[in-house]
Amino acid sequence: MAKEEASTGVAVRLAARDGTLNGVTSGLAPSYLQANLIVLPSRYATDFRLLCARNPVPCPLLAESAQIGSYDSLKSYIDGLKGDRIASDIDIRHDAPRYMVYQDGRLTTSHITNIASQWTEDHVAFLIGCSYSFETALIDDGLPPRHTVMGRNVPMYRTNIPLCPAGAFTGSTYVVSMRPYKRSDIERVRDITRPFVTTHGEPIAWGWHGMRNLGIADINSPDWGDAPVELDGQPLDSTNEDVVPVFWGCGVTPQEAVMKAGLKGTVLGHAPGHMILLDVKDEDVFTIA
Amino acid sequence: MAKEEASTGVAVRLAARDGTLNGVTSGLAPSYLQANLIVLPSRYATDFRLLCARNPVPCPLLAESAQIGSYDSLKSYIDGLKGDRIASDIDIRHDAPRYMVYQDGRLTTSHITNIASQWTEDHVAFLIGCSYSFETALIDDGLPPRHTVMGRNVPMYRTNIPLCPAGAFTGSTYVVSMRPYKRSDIERVRDITRPFVTTHGEPIAWGWHGMRNLGIADINSPDWGDAPVELDGQPLDSTNEDVVPVFWGCGVTPQEAVMKAGLKGTVLGHAPGHMILLDVKDEDVFTIA
Repeated sequence: MAKEEASTGVAVRLAARDGTLNGVTSGLAPSYLQANLIVLPSRYATDFRLLCARNPVPCPLLAESAQIGSYDSLKSYIDGLKGDRIASDIDIRHDAPRYMVYQDGRLTTSHITNIASQWTEDHVAFLIGCSYSFETALIDDGLPPRHTVMGRNVPMYRTNIPLCPAGAFTGSTYVVSMRPYKRSDIERVRDITRPFVTTHGEPIAWGWHGMRNLGIADINSPDWGDAPVELDGQPLDSTNEDVVPVFWGCGVTPQEAVMKAGLKGTVLGHAPGHMILLDVKDEDVFTIA
Repeated sequence: MAKEEASTGVAVRLAARDGTLNGVTSGLAPSYLQANLIVLPSRYATDFRLLCARNPVPCPLLAESAQIGSYDSLKSYIDGLKGDRIASDIDIRHDAPRYMVYQDGRLTTSHITNIASQWTEDHVAFLIGCSYSFETALIDDGLPPRHTVMGRNVPMYRTNIPLCPAGAFTGSTYVVSMRPYKRSDIERVRDITRPFVTTHGEPIAWGWHGMRNLGIADINSPDWGDAPVELDGQPLDSTNEDVVPVFWGCGVTPQEAVMKAGLKGTVLGHAPGHMILLDVKDEDVFTIA
């Protein structure tokens, strides 16, 4: 679908639902909230809520299925917003452009266009904030993320930073997204993204030293998304101290947690970069403590 | 003061205030909430609230000064509890048995008995949950923490686990408290402490491998508190896989964060282990998502 057709959250959901849209959602419906998806067997729901409460930066919980088995109605965790304001016409099974399927903690199917046949009455869906939400604010302030300029998917990486465990969820680590910036712009980038507390907020690390602290060996080999490119089309260079990587918590973290914890049964998620769009706009959740 | 005299939160506060009590508070007024203290110049208050929101496991925010400069009235962050229910008769400047003073990010005075001369009208006090709160539950379930049996202070350690940055608070890492347990008891210990979400909740790491992941080199050389001893009075032994260290988030973390961030001006805190007791009881804040 053309970008100009995808001007609202519901338009993007309907395009994904009818198969018109099956690519990444970065840049679509600017200022509408995009959400990461994780769908769990109901016996893991309590532990997962606790995982989010203990790790709100990578796992900011926006909403979940209104009841066990609900794929078309939501319970909201956003102050003052009811579930039907988050997404009034939603089908969790179809409204992300692409999905992943995990069986007993292992990825078994990748990038399928719907999960209608995998969804059961025992599944609970959780929607997690996404850092795409603050990209509009960065663009508006003259600091567009590199991948949006290049029309690519944001690069995402596994790290060695542990999540605080919660019940069945042990041994998990942060996943981060990365946007390169000039070192002299980092404080402005921090300030702009800080208020987006339900969508990962300010960066968790920056610079080449920050990258090594996260346990990332090669910035040009992301685990998901597209390899980052510099303004002139060159790869990022760890000897260049002027342009450095900046890392945010990433909503792919719960899918990694499912694998690390070896959860039993069928777990479903969006394909990284292929988000579910909501009816809520960024300004509705733009808050700071 | 004798332990039997310190049966309520306010009794312990008054004993600290009049100088009768100047030791550690572990085991005093069982089931009353104990709180870590950090007192900041008001310009850092917003960033500190955000630090707590982003790192709720080491920094569970219970209450703060009702206004800038208030040392005797509180604003509560505990659902359904007003500030005067948290502590009706409180003087932040006197009610911890011992205090620390930091100047421009460096510890300058240690273990003084009050901060009356350091407190200014520009200071804001924050009270942070303390893991002593779940020790009663562990004792009641037949799993008393070793240091409570031995009458010692809990051992606390710096780690290499980064906090999520928040404004002025960058470069900070978790501080943890440690209680040794039999490996076979760890799942019970996790289950018992999990519901105490406003007082650090379940452990963040356990076992010798977990210790190394935190970057702790020697379990018998804590950074604060007393060196841990085993049942028979021996030091803990990293070749013993039956009795292993179990680590929880610790409310000393904010004081470490103040030093790492090099905050300007005068910052005040309790001396590790020397907490401010509250009127709230553990069961008032015993919640799980």
